[in-house]
Amino acid sequence: MEIDNEQQLDETVHSLSDLLESGQDEEFINAFDNLHDFEMGKVYAALPAQVREVAWRTMDDETLASIFDNLEIEDSDVVDLLAELPPKKGADILERMYADNEADLLQAMPARMVATYLQLLPAEDAQEMRKLIKYDDQTAGALMATEYLAVQKGMRVAEVLEKVKEQASEAESIIYIYVIDAEQRLIGVASLRDLLTHPDEMLIDEITNTRVVSVGAEDPQGDVAQVVADYNFFSIPVIDKGQHLLGIITVDDIVDVIDEEAVGEYSGLAAVDVSQTDDTPWHSAIKRIPWLLVLLVLALTTTALVCSFEGSIRQAPVLAVFITLITGTAGNAGTQSLALSIRRLSVGNDKSVAKNFLSELLSAAILALAAGITIGLVVLFWRQNNDLATAIGLSMSAAIFLASLLSAIIPVIIDKLGYDPAVANGPFITTLCDLTSVGVYFIIAQQFLTYFVGS
Amino acid sequence: MEIDNEQQLDETVHSLSDLLESGQDEEFINAFDNLHDFEMGKVYAALPAQVREVAWRTMDDETLASIFDNLEIEDSDVVDLLAELPPKKGADILERMYADNEADLLQAMPARMVATYLQLLPAEDAQEMRKLIKYDDQTAGALMATEYLAVQKGMRVAEVLEKVKEQASEAESIIYIYVIDAEQRLIGVASLRDLLTHPDEMLIDEITNTRVVSVGAEDPQGDVAQVVADYNFFSIPVIDKGQHLLGIITVDDIVDVIDEEAVGEYSGLAAVDVSQTDDTPWHSAIKRIPWLLVLLVLALTTTALVCSFEGSIRQAPVLAVFITLITGTAGNAGTQSLALSIRRLSVGNDKSVAKNFLSELLSAAILALAAGITIGLVVLFWRQNNDLATAIGLSMSAAIFLASLLSAIIPVIIDKLGYDPAVANGPFITTLCDLTSVGVYFIIAQQFLTYFVGS
Repeated sequence: MEIDNEQQLDETVHSLSDLLESGQDEEFINAFDNLHDFEMGKVYAALPAQVREVAWRTMDDETLASIFDNLEIEDSDVVDLLAELPPKKGADILERMYADNEADLLQAMPARMVATYLQLLPAEDAQEMRKLIKYDDQTAGALMATEYLAVQKGMRVAEVLEKVKEQASEAESIIYIYVIDAEQRLIGVASLRDLLTHPDEMLIDEITNTRVVSVGAEDPQGDVAQVVADYNFFSIPVIDKGQHLLGIITVDDIVDVIDEEAVGEYSGLAAVDVSQTDDTPWHSAIKRIPWLLVLLVLALTTTALVCSFEGSIRQAPVLAVFITLITGTAGNAGTQSLALSIRRLSVGNDKSVAKNFLSELLSAAILALAAGITIGLVVLFWRQNNDLATAIGLSMSAAIFLASLLSAIIPVIIDKLGYDPAVANGPFITTLCDLTSVGVYFIIAQQFLTYFVGS
Repeated sequence: MEIDNEQQLDETVHSLSDLLESGQDEEFINAFDNLHDFEMGKVYAALPAQVREVAWRTMDDETLASIFDNLEIEDSDVVDLLAELPPKKGADILERMYADNEADLLQAMPARMVATYLQLLPAEDAQEMRKLIKYDDQTAGALMATEYLAVQKGMRVAEVLEKVKEQASEAESIIYIYVIDAEQRLIGVASLRDLLTHPDEMLIDEITNTRVVSVGAEDPQGDVAQVVADYNFFSIPVIDKGQHLLGIITVDDIVDVIDEEAVGEYSGLAAVDVSQTDDTPWHSAIKRIPWLLVLLVLALTTTALVCSFEGSIRQAPVLAVFITLITGTAGNAGTQSLALSIRRLSVGNDKSVAKNFLSELLSAAILALAAGITIGLVVLFWRQNNDLATAIGLSMSAAIFLASLLSAIIPVIIDKLGYDPAVANGPFITTLCDLTSVGVYFIIAQQFLTYFVGS
């Protein structure tokens, strides 16, 4: 029944547009109301602009706010859709949206536009927005909705249930009811489930869990996601440093955070932004060229290094044969170490940095040994030359050992310096490993040079 | 307040163990009950085995079931914990767990153990489990709980609310109430929110949304996650082919699925399983060696190819200088294309395979041109040799073009053949690109050989 492919969307958009264009406004509204919130957003954005011109006039503010709450496209595109409405209408919609989405849109607007809307919004809402849009993009504050259910301690279950009923249509989530003191400080949480299963005259305090898990407004979103995922919460309260309840973050926003983080890590590993899967060829290429050229320049240092050993190659051309084998294999080991290292940084484990380093050292040594011995034996059987086999085996071991260690440590260093460790991406690491591998290879090979010239 | 590092966990485990060992069972139970479900699981698993021996005797079945429901460790480890209890006790716990978790544990047990528990479970529960454990690991069926709230159509709001209150403590989620007909077929959904805000005497049918989005029991979990994430649902019903309601999947399970899928894609890209961040060095190396050796063998074909051009290198050793530059850069472009291609397969876009291919072709051509011209100019200024510059520029363009295309297409082909496209991982692709790059490079370079011998 869902609208989950282009064809179904096209058909729905088409039939809805037809209704409006033939003046069947009533039928349009009915058909539109039948859609799920998420589908309404999808369809609204896909309507031809001139149909939208008519469409929004047939809808009440509540429906439009729900549409704008559920548009799963870039915030800047949502802003464009909002700008199609007269400013006063736009402000009415904004006010009716959930605070987190409203703030997201304001943050995506040019300053002039923000000023216009802030003036048109009711004073109270405008003030709240001024606070919310200050939170950094990646913090809990930027993710929180302010439509939560909070009650004073000392209330009775029946009173609380009455309040839940009153606020149910506005609150972003009614699963948890937060219990606060007179100063708005968060002191506990009760579940609607408990409310429903306890007698009306009971004090809310008796079913309040005072070990409430909360996050700070400045906490990184990744950490919030981890807590929500661990504890299986449907929502989590956000507090300031004085324990005051500021808002809640619901699990549907957490799902988006986890998705974005995963896409980010994945993009980082490959040195390309994979978030847009339907870019034009031109845009796709433009996005990839910068890193590719940076890496090209870095690769030139490897070229210069090989160049300085041109004399050795002239004496023993066989050396050239094994360059790719050694750089390639070391690069592969490096990519593995890198992925493990970045993952360890993002998930965290319980060991100290020193212990992790030692562990990596040992694991790199085992890998180096395994690959070195394997390739040494292969070369021995293939070329029947002890010295060449020893040189290649040793080089391979050294190159893999170095590549694994470097790839494991570089993200940790970048992280300690306060940067995003994903800057050390896979292609960057392989290019860097090429450099160290070539260096190690020729230094070792030169020691054996006299033994296998002409082999 | 959370237990989110090793030290806090150690302290909690220590103080709880002390209580039990000094015979303060009452205090132990109180302190333990104060923990969140997730923390209970974490602490229980971390208690020394001989303390657990005493601990489980002090707890009621309800608490133990909640602990086993909330253990976020490997299922096989949970099974070990369960095996510490007498079989009858273990069966009592299993029966009280949520059906999805219960089925997960049974699936992780050796057949003998499953048989024992199935005999000890009440007939009804055993029969349900026999059904559930049949679902394939990666399907919606394996993820669903059977503790949902369903009511017959035609009931009044007050009756439904009464039913909700009765079942609240058992249902996995009380946010949605599913409406079914006499044959257990799913016909709609109502929210607890709507129940609370509508008059008692109203028919549930009037607040039932009949456009209910559901998933099939055999649907892949990734697809289910996508729907839940898009629609911002807290849970989604699972039906069989006859529209009969079988169970529900809650968003907390979806969060885990998204996490696992991300880790899987990420591991795939790097050819290493990153899911265990605290492996021993030995285990970590053992996991990495197989792929590394497979790739080493593949890399040997590249070596053999270079070897066949040893004559050219002998004539013009300068050729060896640029091997790494060309293989490395082509490999980087390949990794980018691969990541984009795999992402496109997993998320899907609205274009046809042919359109995506054409788009990739154009984008590869732009990249190839940009990198080829850049490197051609660099070589021209550096070596002052037109022919060498042309040869290197051309080789670079051809290698990048081929690498990008291959890396984009191979996952699509693997996918069409019915395998997991992540088999084509980053290191595999770079190793393969090494082969094509070396081939293209020497074939092009040989055409120019006479012009730059000795340069």
